Amino acid sequence: MNNHEQVGLSQDPLTDLKQRLRQFAAERDWDQFHSPKNLSMALIAEAAELVEHFQWLSEEQSASLPPDKLVEVEQELADILIYLIRTADKLDIDLIRAAQRKIELNEKKYPSNKVRGSSRKYTEY
Amino acid sequence: MNNHEQVGLSQDPLTDLKQRLRQFAAERDWDQFHSPKNLSMALIAEAAELVEHFQWLSEEQSASLPPDKLVEVEQELADILIYLIRTADKLDIDLIRAAQRKIELNEKKYPSNKVRGSSRKYTEY
Amino acid sequence: MNNHEQVGLSQDPLTDLKQRLRQFAAERDWDQFHSPKNLSMALIAEAAELVEHFQWLSEEQSASLPPDKLVEVEQELADILIYLIRTADKLDIDLIRAAQRKIELNEKKYPSNKVRGSSRKYTEY
Amino acid sequence: MNNHEQVGLSQDPLTDLKQRLRQFAAERDWDQFHSPKNLSMALIAEAAELVEHFQWLSEEQSASLPPDKLVEVEQELADILIYLIRTADKLDIDLIRAAQRKIELNEKKYPSNKVRGSSRKYTEY
Repeated sequence: MNNHEQVGLSQDPLTDLKQRLRQFAAERDWDQFHSPKNLSMALIAEAAELVEHFQWLSEEQSASLPPDKLVEVEQELADILIYLIRTADKLDIDLIRAAQRKIELNEKKYPSNKVRGSSRKYTEY
Repeated sequence: MNNHEQVGLSQDPLTDLKQRLRQFAAERDWDQFHSPKNLSMALIAEAAELVEHFQWLSEEQSASLPPDKLVEVEQELADILIYLIRTADKLDIDLIRAAQRKIELNEKKYPSNKVRGSSRKYTEY
Repeated sequence: MNNHEQVGLSQDPLTDLKQRLRQFAAERDWDQFHSPKNLSMALIAEAAELVEHFQWLSEEQSASLPPDKLVEVEQELADILIYLIRTADKLDIDLIRAAQRKIELNEKKYPSNKVRGSSRKYTEY
Repeated sequence: MNNHEQVGLSQDPLTDLKQRLRQFAAERDWDQFHSPKNLSMALIAEAAELVEHFQWLSEEQSASLPPDKLVEVEQELADILIYLIRTADKLDIDLIRAAQRKIELNEKKYPSNKVRGSSRKYTEY
């Protein structure tokens, strides 16, 4: 039986991850540290590790990483997702629905016929 | 027909979101701005907006937000997920598998019998 | 009498700023919110506002900002310095001496004859 | 002759640091990497290392760090100041004057008789 099965039949992969992470924290008695405030700090620290990989690279270089760098970047993305799921779980927020709603808002905010190809900042429309 | 259906039958919600975001960027000719380097900057800027909500709150307050704050925090989490999906897509990284692997690594790195309830930093084990 | 003089004769500009910021917080009874933990969150939130100005710009564009952007960026740098001074003050750290020591460490860590013009990450030396 | 003297007589400590950092980059031919965009990424990565020290600590713990942690935190603050000075230098911004102006703005924005001791977010006034 693998870890995946330990948490039972899943509805979707994010829900599976949420449940594995709950179990992970519970087994270590780490929920006491996982306030949304603290989790937001852990999340941004992981986001910064991603940024650090790219800070001296050109945009082009950032798009074609050597294999060893790509493995490291993959782990940073994983860490960000992990803390994002934990934060959402602690606040009882459905990440998928939140993203769907935000994309719908963005579709109205940035109509393609108005913003197409513009280098202006999104906030300036 | 809703937006969800526009991008066809899906394997899972994250793949759906990835495809909607591809379409969103393509319709606006914004892929030219979406290098992994730039996306990592957008991602951390959104993570900071999350942090900003919590910076003057106690940990307890961060766990019981008033409804209007919760709506705002939900949008920040959505923005983080959106840029996380875009970054992973541009680097051809499978976010779910990356997180699963990272959790397995963490399970070995922090055995529950050794780290249980400790307030020491994870890095000090 | 201007604000500068209100805090008396100064040794150096950073010490002046530290004293003005102490007074600013005291007059508002805001020291209760200014734990190093909270201040580090405020600091990174300001750093992210700086990042946000540059995220869709090329490196060249970031070096030649239009006047209105430059004014905004100046304010972000000011905010970062303000929270940096507050954090250092709360931890009784002398920022100038800390930076002098760090530069000396960096001079040893990255000898110019070894790292000259290299695009490799600093951490890889 | 110490490093300080190498850059000549100074007006103030920040100007000294600016000049030492210019020399440091020039000797290593690193100016090519030091666009404001890249420097903002390096700055936020250092700010995140500060955040990381505090993420699992209570506010009280963050205010009374053990000596070994304090040394590490001092180095993070130094790194932030170093990249802040470099960014300001590249944009020809006077950090001290920028901070003085920002404090004056804040004094008007948050009149002490109105905001005293309030736990509401600054942005809500």
